[in-house]
Amino acid sequence: MSQQSAIPFEREALDSVLKRRFFFAPAFEIYGGVSGLYDYGPPGCALQANIVDTWRKHFILEEDMLEVDCTMLTPYEVLKTSGHVDKFADWMCRDLKTGEIFRADHLVEEVIEARLKGNKEARGIIEEAAEEDAEKKKRKKKVKEIKAVKLEDSVVEEYETILAKMDGFSGKELGDLMLKYAIGNPATGEPLEQPKEFNLMFETAIGPSGALKGYLRPETAQGQFLNFSKLLDFNNERMPFASASIGKSFRNEISPRSGLLRVREFLMAEIEHFVDPQDKSHASFHEVKDVTLRFLAKDVQSAGKTDIIETTVGKAVASGMVDNETLGYFLARISLFLIKIGVDPARMRFRQHMDNEMAHYATDCWDAELQTSYGWIECVGCADRSAYDLSVHAARTKEKLVVRQPLETPLTVTRFEAEIEKKKFGPKFRKSAPLVEQWLVSRTECELEELAKEMAANGKIVFKVEGIEEDVELDTSFVVIEQKTRTEHIREFTPNVIEPSFGLGRIMYSIFEHSFWRRPEDKDRAVLSLPPLVAPTKVLLVPLSNSPELQAVTKKVSAILKKAVIPFKIDDSSASIGKRYSRNDELGTPFGITIDFESVGDFSVTLRERDSTKQVRGSVEDIVAAIKEVTYNGATWEEGTKNLKAFETKVEEE
Amino acid sequence: MSQQSAIPFEREALDSVLKRRFFFAPAFEIYGGVSGLYDYGPPGCALQANIVDTWRKHFILEEDMLEVDCTMLTPYEVLKTSGHVDKFADWMCRDLKTGEIFRADHLVEEVIEARLKGNKEARGIIEEAAEEDAEKKKRKKKVKEIKAVKLEDSVVEEYETILAKMDGFSGKELGDLMLKYAIGNPATGEPLEQPKEFNLMFETAIGPSGALKGYLRPETAQGQFLNFSKLLDFNNERMPFASASIGKSFRNEISPRSGLLRVREFLMAEIEHFVDPQDKSHASFHEVKDVTLRFLAKDVQSAGKTDIIETTVGKAVASGMVDNETLGYFLARISLFLIKIGVDPARMRFRQHMDNEMAHYATDCWDAELQTSYGWIECVGCADRSAYDLSVHAARTKEKLVVRQPLETPLTVTRFEAEIEKKKFGPKFRKSAPLVEQWLVSRTECELEELAKEMAANGKIVFKVEGIEEDVELDTSFVVIEQKTRTEHIREFTPNVIEPSFGLGRIMYSIFEHSFWRRPEDKDRAVLSLPPLVAPTKVLLVPLSNSPELQAVTKKVSAILKKAVIPFKIDDSSASIGKRYSRNDELGTPFGITIDFESVGDFSVTLRERDSTKQVRGSVEDIVAAIKEVTYNGATWEEGTKNLKAFETKVEEE
Repeated sequence: MSQQSAIPFEREALDSVLKRRFFFAPAFEIYGGVSGLYDYGPPGCALQANIVDTWRKHFILEEDMLEVDCTMLTPYEVLKTSGHVDKFADWMCRDLKTGEIFRADHLVEEVIEARLKGNKEARGIIEEAAEEDAEKKKRKKKVKEIKAVKLEDSVVEEYETILAKMDGFSGKELGDLMLKYAIGNPATGEPLEQPKEFNLMFETAIGPSGALKGYLRPETAQGQFLNFSKLLDFNNERMPFASASIGKSFRNEISPRSGLLRVREFLMAEIEHFVDPQDKSHASFHEVKDVTLRFLAKDVQSAGKTDIIETTVGKAVASGMVDNETLGYFLARISLFLIKIGVDPARMRFRQHMDNEMAHYATDCWDAELQTSYGWIECVGCADRSAYDLSVHAARTKEKLVVRQPLETPLTVTRFEAEIEKKKFGPKFRKSAPLVEQWLVSRTECELEELAKEMAANGKIVFKVEGIEEDVELDTSFVVIEQKTRTEHIREFTPNVIEPSFGLGRIMYSIFEHSFWRRPEDKDRAVLSLPPLVAPTKVLLVPLSNSPELQAVTKKVSAILKKAVIPFKIDDSSASIGKRYSRNDELGTPFGITIDFESVGDFSVTLRERDSTKQVRGSVEDIVAAIKEVTYNGATWEEGTKNLKAFETKVEEE
Repeated sequence: MSQQSAIPFEREALDSVLKRRFFFAPAFEIYGGVSGLYDYGPPGCALQANIVDTWRKHFILEEDMLEVDCTMLTPYEVLKTSGHVDKFADWMCRDLKTGEIFRADHLVEEVIEARLKGNKEARGIIEEAAEEDAEKKKRKKKVKEIKAVKLEDSVVEEYETILAKMDGFSGKELGDLMLKYAIGNPATGEPLEQPKEFNLMFETAIGPSGALKGYLRPETAQGQFLNFSKLLDFNNERMPFASASIGKSFRNEISPRSGLLRVREFLMAEIEHFVDPQDKSHASFHEVKDVTLRFLAKDVQSAGKTDIIETTVGKAVASGMVDNETLGYFLARISLFLIKIGVDPARMRFRQHMDNEMAHYATDCWDAELQTSYGWIECVGCADRSAYDLSVHAARTKEKLVVRQPLETPLTVTRFEAEIEKKKFGPKFRKSAPLVEQWLVSRTECELEELAKEMAANGKIVFKVEGIEEDVELDTSFVVIEQKTRTEHIREFTPNVIEPSFGLGRIMYSIFEHSFWRRPEDKDRAVLSLPPLVAPTKVLLVPLSNSPELQAVTKKVSAILKKAVIPFKIDDSSASIGKRYSRNDELGTPFGITIDFESVGDFSVTLRERDSTKQVRGSVEDIVAAIKEVTYNGATWEEGTKNLKAFETKVEEE
């Protein structure tokens, strides 16, 4: 589409259209706004609803997933168990004089980058407009000016090493870096307080006593895990199966930026696919194995490169680059979905998490990243989370979250087990006895093996239990840990979870960028080439004039469109036809129906296609049928209108 | 449908089906649950999605409303202005010994009712199982036993007066009643702390500093009001128009009860119809004027009665019972919507708010109430809120939230105006000067007239301004308030708002009750007669056996249903056909397709209708077409299947 790239992309031009057409706007704007909170206006809201609807059909309906709708309010205990209370945090540091708060890692990175840039300027090295990644570009605001100061070679090297390791620093380390390199408030140069951990969840109290601490969920996943047993039952105990959920999640960003890309309240769509850890094949894998994706593998990144491997999902799984069929299946399905709703495949890649980036329990993880003017944006995560989530909730609640399958032939199994002398625990540990017992029964096979070795070596085991201050010491009179051999008739296992997780706001913004262009003949005429399927409104009805005859036809056509449940708008303003169409090009409306005086006689109308501005003419019935074909049945404009007459007009230039 | 009412309704039987089929369940159940929070399982979630979809089509699409999606997180200032910070509260009282917390009004009412009941028992008066209203029945748990104690006649009279005035008591008055009548903790008899106000909004802090106080919205309306000017602009300045929003709202109930009827997180759908205060006619009123509704008018209630007036909306508006056409239009549309999604019209009424029940600014307000085993439940509110919301936000933010219309003929207007001597305010009031000025400019016409009178009488005006401790005193050297006459070319007005507001969870629960029945031949066979349009799943595919030939046909039929985007499930378990159908009757699935050995030969199948268990036979194509007709195009079973052959079978009894 060379026409569409004739005028270079400018973010300001897009932002101006999105604002003018009320796709979205800062929430509470008349009150001065609250950063990181946005309201969607009618076209944004309709686009979002259509994307959600497409998602529901593409994933839930097509694959028979079990959709659930769980509460956003979540009690402390659940998120303590999931790890969010302890780990869902960023490091912040405060300027005690001005009260300003900075996100520590972003600040250090930004200041160091600015200094490196200043060094290059001082040395007279001209920076190429290198592709920068999203995270960096977004944060450009704190450091207002780059000073051309030359740095020692050794310092440059140190700085570059720091940047490379940026994602791995602890709060203490960030604080040390700030001291060592005199990184303070960029505006004043004043030193800042040492970094403190800031939990990103919104906290609240549930109920009148204030005693039940709760949070707004940071993801929709936990509700799905907690309902696992009910879902398995609903699915008649069959495995594998997937649950899914669409809903708002919350993240109390330290300093939100970049419009819809980093916000405090956002719509997510998440799938939890529960699978047998011993069999991660997928029954429909053959349907997607030939889908070609652009992969950025972890070993490529570890080598400091960003080379893309373009290959089919089938080959990617066969070669072991993608861990298993189910994961591969979802990568392909994610790609098909994103393309369906308007993502440019050339600006989509699947980036694998590097080993140090992944949670310790994860087996493999890929992000669908979309390229925008902010860089490559993580829009969909697709992780194999192993049995982590179900295991921790089961351990905490003592509810079994497992699958039980009858074995065709009984199995003889040898396994480490801890046999607890319960009677002795009460007298020794009193109130804490259940904690110690619980600790023992929640050990994994591996941990038990280690404990057995320790016991054999020292005659006792020593360990820490959360909630008990002193070390716990047990000898064999309290617990015997040894291998036992049993015959099992039932196989009981905790399913693994493969989790495709969609950030719909980020996807939506990327689609805006991917579908935005301006007509070469007039750069003020912007177009959003949203696919008809997700476009907020499908048709603009344009009567040529405001005469009563045309009004009557407009009314009749409206009734037909309403009956066909095709979202449309009427523009009977006095603006020229060209102006009216151009307004709706900005809204991404794919079709226009012009009602003219000929329409009064034979009830024929003209249909205009947004991107090409081509027009065809036919009876209202045929035109509506064509709109339906192209919008909902995947036909191209050419296919959908092949029986209609081409129509020449000059109104576009008016 | 006498068959459907042959076995009397039992709430326990319905609850058991809803739980067993995972329509919904207590959230965080494996953690012990949190009262007032529920998760929707797959059928509940699908039913909810279908109701939302129907709502969107019925209201937004059909009437071209402007849908917005605003944030749930809301800063303090917005809800302070709207009145929620000060008034969205209940009275609670605490038992200082046990820590228990009671909602004061519910407690007083409940204890007094129990005493009156005990009195009747003591006097040997047999209580008839009178219809009780929902609020009462729900709260029955606190008072565990009724003691047969005779009361003095005078006390009975006092008690009855108290009950009649129950909704109007202040916290102080409730506290006095508790002291006077020795109302304490029903379990122990111990006295309680005096009632304290408990705000029902969930509070949180936005951003890292903790300084920006926020709440979870208690309704979706505020976001719509705040975006009024953008919406008016989007609508090309045309009036009237409506915005709409579907989303979660929150209410931190003191003690939630009654399943889905009183919860802490719930889905709402709200419309804000902005209308010229001088013209509340509605362009489509003629389309609904003949719709008959069951009205419970305010004067009937004031007279202590509940007689229903059954009449058309046209007559209700003409007689003045319903204040205006737009309000009447929405009452009719609400009724049509509720019936479409499965509400029993005989168990629906529109109850008008009594004058002392309505907010001071409201012109008229009607609730669509649905009758359930908990009594009559308020499910949709429909209020004419006058210009209140836009006015208060405009006054607070100094942003004009008005419509400006050119006048065809200029108008001469005489109005009270306050002319402020700005220069004198600074020296006298210092920092508080803007507060005083703001107070003056936000007075209404009426208030200005009063102030003018006060000034004329006393030579000064004295008033209180929020944020200033002392009274403010001004004489004519500071402000002149008098009538001015001007010629206006533009009419500027603040629109009035008519607000239909739907509690979707309550509606859903009512539909469960309205559609639940048990087959007379076997009361364990329960049916949810949900309309096909909103039923979670439309079709159950039932292969007669698990043979490969039938599996192949099942696969083909599945593909056809998928292509037609008809939500279906396959049940190829080994249970009998009868059992499989009966399981799906409980899920409200309206159709079943049986695949038998004849299907292998001629690709014909049997279609079963859930309520009548009638069956017809035909080709898969014809059967799918019939399903589409009945489900999405409003055809009855008879109309949809008129070209299909009736089919007799005995499988139901298996």
